[in-house]
Amino acid sequence: MNLDTSALLTDFYQLTMMGGYVSCGHSHQRAVFDLYFRRVPEDGGFCVAAGLEQALAYLTSLRFTEADIDYLRGLGRFDDGFLAYLRDFRFKGDVSAVEEGTVVFPGEPLMRVSATMPEAQLIESALLNIVNFQTLIATKAARVCHAAGDEGLVLEFGLRRAQGVDGAMSASRAAYVGGCAATSNVRAGQQFGIPVSGTQAHSWIMAFDSEIEAFRAYAKAYPDDTALLVDTYDTLTSGVPNAIRVAREMEADGHHLRSIRIDSGDLAYLSKEARRLLDEAGFPEIKIVASSDLDEHIIHNLRAQGARIDVWGVGTRLVTSHSAPALGGVYKLVAASDSEGSMVPRIKVSSNPEKTTTPGVKQVWRTFDAQGLFAGDIIALDDEDLSSLRGTVRTRHATWLYPPRRVSRGVRIEPLLVPVIKAGRRVYEAPPLSAVRARALSQLSCLRAEHKRFVNADIYWVGLSERLFALRARLIEEASAEAAPPG
Amino acid sequence: MNLDTSALLTDFYQLTMMGGYVSCGHSHQRAVFDLYFRRVPEDGGFCVAAGLEQALAYLTSLRFTEADIDYLRGLGRFDDGFLAYLRDFRFKGDVSAVEEGTVVFPGEPLMRVSATMPEAQLIESALLNIVNFQTLIATKAARVCHAAGDEGLVLEFGLRRAQGVDGAMSASRAAYVGGCAATSNVRAGQQFGIPVSGTQAHSWIMAFDSEIEAFRAYAKAYPDDTALLVDTYDTLTSGVPNAIRVAREMEADGHHLRSIRIDSGDLAYLSKEARRLLDEAGFPEIKIVASSDLDEHIIHNLRAQGARIDVWGVGTRLVTSHSAPALGGVYKLVAASDSEGSMVPRIKVSSNPEKTTTPGVKQVWRTFDAQGLFAGDIIALDDEDLSSLRGTVRTRHATWLYPPRRVSRGVRIEPLLVPVIKAGRRVYEAPPLSAVRARALSQLSCLRAEHKRFVNADIYWVGLSERLFALRARLIEEASAEAAPPG
Repeated sequence: MNLDTSALLTDFYQLTMMGGYVSCGHSHQRAVFDLYFRRVPEDGGFCVAAGLEQALAYLTSLRFTEADIDYLRGLGRFDDGFLAYLRDFRFKGDVSAVEEGTVVFPGEPLMRVSATMPEAQLIESALLNIVNFQTLIATKAARVCHAAGDEGLVLEFGLRRAQGVDGAMSASRAAYVGGCAATSNVRAGQQFGIPVSGTQAHSWIMAFDSEIEAFRAYAKAYPDDTALLVDTYDTLTSGVPNAIRVAREMEADGHHLRSIRIDSGDLAYLSKEARRLLDEAGFPEIKIVASSDLDEHIIHNLRAQGARIDVWGVGTRLVTSHSAPALGGVYKLVAASDSEGSMVPRIKVSSNPEKTTTPGVKQVWRTFDAQGLFAGDIIALDDEDLSSLRGTVRTRHATWLYPPRRVSRGVRIEPLLVPVIKAGRRVYEAPPLSAVRARALSQLSCLRAEHKRFVNADIYWVGLSERLFALRARLIEEASAEAAPPG
Repeated sequence: MNLDTSALLTDFYQLTMMGGYVSCGHSHQRAVFDLYFRRVPEDGGFCVAAGLEQALAYLTSLRFTEADIDYLRGLGRFDDGFLAYLRDFRFKGDVSAVEEGTVVFPGEPLMRVSATMPEAQLIESALLNIVNFQTLIATKAARVCHAAGDEGLVLEFGLRRAQGVDGAMSASRAAYVGGCAATSNVRAGQQFGIPVSGTQAHSWIMAFDSEIEAFRAYAKAYPDDTALLVDTYDTLTSGVPNAIRVAREMEADGHHLRSIRIDSGDLAYLSKEARRLLDEAGFPEIKIVASSDLDEHIIHNLRAQGARIDVWGVGTRLVTSHSAPALGGVYKLVAASDSEGSMVPRIKVSSNPEKTTTPGVKQVWRTFDAQGLFAGDIIALDDEDLSSLRGTVRTRHATWLYPPRRVSRGVRIEPLLVPVIKAGRRVYEAPPLSAVRARALSQLSCLRAEHKRFVNADIYWVGLSERLFALRARLIEEASAEAAPPG
């Protein structure tokens, strides 16, 4: 993995806080942090977790080089004791995480880090960077693929307008996890084993004296895998007729034109007319590929208009998640050891209720209905074992807006957080990326369609266990009573 | 620079086209491509060019490793002749470019690549990726800094929600070029020599038994550089009074509290009240830092409401250019050699006039008025020398919507494209990043305020020289006449 795993890939305040903890004797204080998001981008109904593999690579390789130490010394802000601490620094904490490709919802920890306060603090920025972005793009890809339907293939073409090199690489990876069939990014294909796809650009057509010459030259070079870009001059009067001509010439030589691509104009009209021309010429098997600033909304509308598009090339709007280009994942302290070394749940109360944290070391449980569909999640304290659930559990929604809900007898239930790092060592073997993608597709098939709508998506039910609910309520009350007095 | 400079960082169709050119004997055909954008994001009035340094690093280090060749062979699409061609591949072309930090406008080439067709094609995707993103963020940063005004400092805090690792690194670099004073991203500080900044998070405050203890511990650890986060419990009844208490204790020890930071709530109200409390307590020199989903529009509005904010911490919305997360830069063939080896201008005509290209090998000239302000740009053919301009030049706007315009006698005029690579060798020495930033600030000071507005920005005048205008008109006519006939 070509990620920058430098320990300096962090916000400066993580280092000043670490230095502070070391200098005031808090460097062995234990802390637990949750990484989670509060809202689904674009008011969608779900997210697809991604990025764990890169996060693990980062955590297990994290160290400060001598050059890093020299740089920090040169800033003149840190004393030698702290720099010595950094020289020996390794991440030795425990991490549990939701597996990549899992469908997740607001408030559910995607990662739970248990470590010393300085360790847990240092890694915040990079973990958020990695998980926020890949989860954002896997989610966007799942939406785009949902719009394309079961028959439609989606190809990711975003390299040229992605946000930087890793903005492209990580996006290609996450887009594949979320359901894309292939990428145009060859480096991502090589690195992650993603199928690659692509044929020719307008410049190819323009480099020849005529469109038909350009088509023939391409068909000669790649007779078994020819797709022709038909919109350089005029799609219906030039591109498609020339493609049909070349398709006939290929047939005569025992080859077949695979597809045509339309990259501009009214894709609904042009694809329907192109389909008609191809069918009339006896080529019903030639596929139509469309591209041009597509996203889930445009694909949904084109399909509603009867567009005859088999393959969707989606670039900029997918890899930048254009209409919502950031996932607001956060990383919050939920427990810390007290002076006797006991772990104590911590809460941050906010006048914005959404920002009030859920304290304690937690697990997320997913319930399933008789059809195997997701039937609601329960966030519980880690020492509550819901796996042997035989009776009922009464939960309340985290927002308190919903009445208590009974989880019925006999329901299937599974924990989502699994140990991935113990005492700094990786204990989780990641499945190959194709299996991660298969997991995402399988998970999405267990999510009711109402949660996958683009408009007014139904909110999936996530509750707190009774014990967790009571703990949270008590800490909110105590925090209000104990709020630090004015000086 | 930690960019992935693998030759495989390209779209797959670049490789299939290269293979096609090689197999049909076009591998020595010369081509000229322009890299430019058609629209300024968010209907703004200007862009700030950035990313050249990374583009040059990429172009001069570009090669296919044996692992790359093996990977491509494994795809089963390329023959041995082409793979041998790739093994020896180096970029040996010529490149001219606008210097980083230059203010640029739609239609102006930021880079001009002259190379063989396969060379020029391979590099398209990576060049666009690098230049599109850094130009996008340098531009966004210039807007944010413009909103903050001459007195306001802007700090970039975007690492955790940037689009991947390079989305953060390149954004920190470009944000600095565009005018930010510092970054929170320590790795970017180290790599690019950008000042770093940051103090503590809410978790620091929560890790102590009370806010005042947390403040005191921080002040003790960093007595000469203390900034206190005052909104963990209640900004005005707890945070600011506790900060004032600690400021007094610091004064008694000969130190000074530098600033307080407000990260939530109504920043206009809270900053005014905090300023009042600090002033009344005798601390008019303590600065107020604000952060919380800021961008140029929010900063503009906060200032209009009289917010007393000295330093703006801007993260997500800056590093993702949240309201317009992609610059649509393109890379278009403008000339190619014919069968006799003469360079011939090429045009792509589109039914969308904005997408019709401007043919030929070109230079961009910037004119200045008597005050030294930018007075309009002229795109001309490269063999037109406008530098000795003594008479007048008649130009027309590229959109044809404007009447011809006379550039008056005695105006100062400068070419913007400078040679940066000749025959594959770098011939341009980049200034240090601080000088690039200074260039951007100087350039922005030469741009009239009307072009810097966020709403209804005045369109800066960019014209074509008479010769170029005539060439373009002729090629458009020829293209219409010669459009490839239906098959």
